Amino acid sequence: MRQNDTICAISTPAGVGGIAVVRLSGVDAVGLASAFLCDGSGKPVSLSDHKARLCEFRDGETMIDEVVATLFKTPHSYTGEDVVEISCHGSVYVQERILRLLMDGGARLAEPGEFTLRAFLNHRLDLSQAEAVADLIDSRSEASHKLAVSQMRGGYAKELESLRQDFIDLSALLELELDFSDEDLTFASREHLRELVDGLTDRVSRLAQSFQMGNALKQGIPVAIVGRPNAGKSTLLNALLNEDRAIVSDTPGTTRDTIEETMVVDGIAFRFIDTAGLRQSSDEIEKLGLERSRKAIEKANVIIFLRDARTPSDSDIKELLPDVDGNEKIMFVVNNKCDLVQPPYPSGISISALKGIGVDDLKRSMVAAVKQRVDEQGDVLLTNARHYEAMNKVLAALGEVRKGMDVDITPDLLVIDIRDALYHLGTITGRITNDEILSSIFSRFCIGK
Amino acid sequence: MRQNDTICAISTPAGVGGIAVVRLSGVDAVGLASAFLCDGSGKPVSLSDHKARLCEFRDGETMIDEVVATLFKTPHSYTGEDVVEISCHGSVYVQERILRLLMDGGARLAEPGEFTLRAFLNHRLDLSQAEAVADLIDSRSEASHKLAVSQMRGGYAKELESLRQDFIDLSALLELELDFSDEDLTFASREHLRELVDGLTDRVSRLAQSFQMGNALKQGIPVAIVGRPNAGKSTLLNALLNEDRAIVSDTPGTTRDTIEETMVVDGIAFRFIDTAGLRQSSDEIEKLGLERSRKAIEKANVIIFLRDARTPSDSDIKELLPDVDGNEKIMFVVNNKCDLVQPPYPSGISISALKGIGVDDLKRSMVAAVKQRVDEQGDVLLTNARHYEAMNKVLAALGEVRKGMDVDITPDLLVIDIRDALYHLGTITGRITNDEILSSIFSRFCIGK
Repeated sequence: MRQNDTICAISTPAGVGGIAVVRLSGVDAVGLASAFLCDGSGKPVSLSDHKARLCEFRDGETMIDEVVATLFKTPHSYTGEDVVEISCHGSVYVQERILRLLMDGGARLAEPGEFTLRAFLNHRLDLSQAEAVADLIDSRSEASHKLAVSQMRGGYAKELESLRQDFIDLSALLELELDFSDEDLTFASREHLRELVDGLTDRVSRLAQSFQMGNALKQGIPVAIVGRPNAGKSTLLNALLNEDRAIVSDTPGTTRDTIEETMVVDGIAFRFIDTAGLRQSSDEIEKLGLERSRKAIEKANVIIFLRDARTPSDSDIKELLPDVDGNEKIMFVVNNKCDLVQPPYPSGISISALKGIGVDDLKRSMVAAVKQRVDEQGDVLLTNARHYEAMNKVLAALGEVRKGMDVDITPDLLVIDIRDALYHLGTITGRITNDEILSSIFSRFCIGK
Repeated sequence: MRQNDTICAISTPAGVGGIAVVRLSGVDAVGLASAFLCDGSGKPVSLSDHKARLCEFRDGETMIDEVVATLFKTPHSYTGEDVVEISCHGSVYVQERILRLLMDGGARLAEPGEFTLRAFLNHRLDLSQAEAVADLIDSRSEASHKLAVSQMRGGYAKELESLRQDFIDLSALLELELDFSDEDLTFASREHLRELVDGLTDRVSRLAQSFQMGNALKQGIPVAIVGRPNAGKSTLLNALLNEDRAIVSDTPGTTRDTIEETMVVDGIAFRFIDTAGLRQSSDEIEKLGLERSRKAIEKANVIIFLRDARTPSDSDIKELLPDVDGNEKIMFVVNNKCDLVQPPYPSGISISALKGIGVDDLKRSMVAAVKQRVDEQGDVLLTNARHYEAMNKVLAALGEVRKGMDVDITPDLLVIDIRDALYHLGTITGRITNDEILSSIFSRFCIGK
């Protein structure tokens, strides 16, 4: 976590483009960049804060490129340090040459995420906001983008801060009791304390529960397409994706591997998973496929249970998906091949995957169901596995507090558990951190950010 | 060639990165961008010339990203028009969303090279400089980069301008003669005119000839590795590249396709071409391979004639490469498998491709020979096929002038040919141009430049 040197990197995507940006940050960023920058007649240029300046980037007498250099002076920069951004032509050769010259001049190639790490270390953003920057860069749908922006802007941090404050208040109440324990005074009634703890437990567990949907929204909602062999699952996958992704044949058991494809529908990314048909089989390869189907079902947020409209059976679901909790997962019963039967159709959504009938209805229903679930979660969704883990530890500590209260242990022991909860809460925003946590977080970033 | 609208594009390379830049140019660039930009509290921001401003890019109430927006006011911008550069996070979703919103706001997606086209139309650079921008972006070696920079900076344009001036002077002399033709005065002696025309012909043909080397430097110097079957050509290719690129076997005639790989040595890009061994063959596939070898030899600037050090024969070259002009091409006679014979080695460079002996010497010799050829060409090298074509037309027109003088035709007819030469010269810098030429030039560019 060295911070006293100057780092540099190509911050724009790799490859050839119209322009590219090489970024420098650190105490020596201005001096280092200035050594290469001059005007058309070779005179050194001086950069002013937040000014974009057209100049030449030279290696001695050799002109490398015409560039636009912009200085962002400390503390009003992304990292909080002096930052110089050099916008050059997007030739791979030029980008690398400029980078190499800056490194020869004394800059160090930045580690992945090191600019953002410095921003965190210089208190320009907290850890959850820094993580949101990485999420924002990775975002590929409106929903994942929205989650990242909300976390980056600090709506999430505000919720965490309010939680933290409540823990501190609780702790203060108990410590007050502790200070005056000799006098046998109880300032807050035990009943009131219990209520406070239960309220906190509710809030924290709601947040922890929101992770399943939050994470799914970020990564793409897993949708398992399941059903008996030959229900038309692969045909449905192809119809949903509008392409020939899966091999379709009349032979039952054609699909063995689970096939997965992502598609954004109405701002939400779905990961459609075509599974092997559910049936008893003695074929060893097919058995492995069935095992994978079970796993896909377990991980899915949405299940499309596909059945042949000609042979619907209401006992199918219970028989084939005995372990699925209908409250936890969003389930659609879909009757395929409805073009081959006469109305009235069996209960559920009726489609013909082959003819594309009803497929858009199915998509719309899925989007509506997911949006409803999201709305039910409240304003703040947990999207980050690290935060989820920390939140579960907070929850465990709260459980200990509650247990201790039930058996009337002394406040000093309760305070220890509450401090434990505060510790884990603190790791989320980076109030409490260490080098190991930081490097595991920032190694997720791309170089140049 | 509409110019009265506002264009936009992602100017940085495609894909995910730390940051990306969306560029807007045109009369309405400021108005269009400002509709989306505001400060943290939602108040509109006003951009000032060459100032980088941190702000939010919003779609109504929805924050899309925190961006840095920089205005370059007309005429002090790349295109000469008002330009706004929006530096956003390098998420594909964010880049596309911002682009889409700007387009919804009334901007048009820029055609490839359209920013540079506008720079040309607004006289910010001439046509050969605009082409140099594309070459610069494509450059992958020090040599190709240097050529592009030289052309971009206008050293090349200066040479062309000086040529043009000489043509104009020549034409003026002839027209003067024409004006006073009644009086039977000849202001310039025919002898002097002939000298002027010959001098111009020399300069133009030297420029035209420089194209072969200039183009090779830009694209990578083609190096044909030729020789009898089993001389070790594929082994040498692998040794030059330091990798197992070509299939090597003891069976003569293993290589059929010509294999081509590019490698930058000491700033110069070489395109090494491994060819089928040269011999008489009745095998039909091998015959096709031989045909390709001949073509590769024809196109190559450098020929490595590889022979087995155990069986050298000085008649080999004449026998196998009867059509090669040693003055035009750089030729190296290389004795391979020198580890299997005792010194003294046969004439030429001695190597063992298998053991890597002498391979670096060979590379060094190639670099030295190419650099010498480049130096012999003078300061200005023609690198662009379009310019080469124009230069040949100038040369043809000069030929007509010379022919006319030899048969003493009247000055008015000579002037027509000189104007023809001037016309073709003018197409290079864009003094003379049309939409067709322009669109064929700028379609080579990437979008966003």
